Amino acid sequence: MLHVFGHTNPDTDAISAALVYANLLSRQGVAAQAFRLGELNFETQFVLKELGLEAPSLLPELPAGAAVALVDHNESAQSTANLAQLDVQRVVDHHKLGDLTTAAPPYLRFEPVGCTGTILLKLHREANLSVEPREAKLMLSAILSDTLHFRSPTTTPEDREAAAFLAPIAGIQNVEEYALAMFAAKSDLGNTPADTLLKMDYKVFPFGDPVKPHQWGIGVIETTNPGYVFGRQAELLAAMDTAKANDDLNGVLLSVVDILNGTNRTLVLSATEEKVLQEVFGVSTHGQVADLGQRISRKKQIVPALEKYFAPES
Amino acid sequence: MLHVFGHTNPDTDAISAALVYANLLSRQGVAAQAFRLGELNFETQFVLKELGLEAPSLLPELPAGAAVALVDHNESAQSTANLAQLDVQRVVDHHKLGDLTTAAPPYLRFEPVGCTGTILLKLHREANLSVEPREAKLMLSAILSDTLHFRSPTTTPEDREAAAFLAPIAGIQNVEEYALAMFAAKSDLGNTPADTLLKMDYKVFPFGDPVKPHQWGIGVIETTNPGYVFGRQAELLAAMDTAKANDDLNGVLLSVVDILNGTNRTLVLSATEEKVLQEVFGVSTHGQVADLGQRISRKKQIVPALEKYFAPES
Repeated sequence: MLHVFGHTNPDTDAISAALVYANLLSRQGVAAQAFRLGELNFETQFVLKELGLEAPSLLPELPAGAAVALVDHNESAQSTANLAQLDVQRVVDHHKLGDLTTAAPPYLRFEPVGCTGTILLKLHREANLSVEPREAKLMLSAILSDTLHFRSPTTTPEDREAAAFLAPIAGIQNVEEYALAMFAAKSDLGNTPADTLLKMDYKVFPFGDPVKPHQWGIGVIETTNPGYVFGRQAELLAAMDTAKANDDLNGVLLSVVDILNGTNRTLVLSATEEKVLQEVFGVSTHGQVADLGQRISRKKQIVPALEKYFAPES
Repeated sequence: MLHVFGHTNPDTDAISAALVYANLLSRQGVAAQAFRLGELNFETQFVLKELGLEAPSLLPELPAGAAVALVDHNESAQSTANLAQLDVQRVVDHHKLGDLTTAAPPYLRFEPVGCTGTILLKLHREANLSVEPREAKLMLSAILSDTLHFRSPTTTPEDREAAAFLAPIAGIQNVEEYALAMFAAKSDLGNTPADTLLKMDYKVFPFGDPVKPHQWGIGVIETTNPGYVFGRQAELLAAMDTAKANDDLNGVLLSVVDILNGTNRTLVLSATEEKVLQEVFGVSTHGQVADLGQRISRKKQIVPALEKYFAPES
């Protein structure tokens, strides 16, 4: 049985893609089950509740050689701990190819689009399989989530076409309204501890010399209610300070993305990060907040610029 | 412009896939040109002559950052020397995933089928593009070559279906006859120097401990005329001895595959290789030849067994 799962700190695409791909494989005669690598965020909880679906089970520790399919990620740092011991038979992803290797020829399907859901819709069409309403809503939700309803610069025409195709099947007449409800759910952060807020969508990136890299932890909170997040600024900065010390990092940032305005104001921990943001983006930091303007995609607008800044001179 | 190429020591699939994929991309509006990474073997020369086609140009040394598409391979050891400096935007392949990484999200299409041509036919169908007779004959030839006209255990039902679909478009009424003509061309080795014969379809495999691996060079000659090859046994063993010394290898084998009978008799250089073949396959060596029976696929039947034999105990 193939274990299908997305990345740690799962977002809506990671969960949706695991569910949809496991179902697609099952329909094609490949025994498969969806799993998750962590707790669901509030947006994903909202989507599953809309559909009356249970969350997939937490992935158990798999024995060496177990057959797995990865969705929405491929790098070991974002996957289950013993990935190198597992038999990766399939990957569907829209990220750069990292350190993955396989023992035998795999099925790989990577495309540079905004969302794994967009690729999964193509897989249905290529297999001449109808898209069920449940799968349509899962894929549509993932596309709206990953592209911030087409606001993110990662959006491609294929993502827009996929969403337009899926909405009527999913029974969603007003996509704008549905996206707003998803984003509102995501933004209803309640009493979530500051450390959880920081780590909800958080990745550590090694920049520069691969042997002795600059390790930067970069979190993102996408919200329709940035006021709430900045109201907890002191707590969040304390959580960032703890993460920096515990994980021996060189820098920590937390980008607060205002979904509706498409802007990014980033919490800056210390003079180290302040200097780098000044030199990379030409922005000043005031009261530990740097205004990064319309740079709302970590993947396309933040990480590549830092990668270039720290790249060893050749 | 995207440079499209297959592996070094190109075979019919490596050349055919580069030509067909470059043409497919061009039809889809992506500027692309096919290249080769070495001299054509006699089978591939025959196929191109049948079609009145020139061989693709030898790949020039590309500047760092040049955009490339790999077909029928993905590992740096089988590719152009400075692959790590190039921008790999696309890969279509049917081998295990090796050491490839990319700087940005790529297009990857891997399937565990017998031939890259089988995947390329799917890409045409998925894009609703007709298959031109020239492309059909290139893909069909690659499938017949890689699967030894369905004799190899790497053959899948999809390869058979693809060939059955392509033959009428290619204008080939008798596939058996065409395959025999291809194999005869491949077997007409004439005055080819022994070192060239050894290296025509030759790969070096690192077995066991990745830090201090056992390096084995394994060549394959697929032929309808094994008598010719064994007539040159002394010369070939001398070429194997030279390769072992020059490349600091732990073992060298040359498998002579009788295409029509589906059998493999392998030239064995020394007592070292003899002992390993005895322990791995339980076969004895007589007069520096080991009868490996129906193990005609290096990829599926020889390399995995040696990999297992040399694997460090865990």
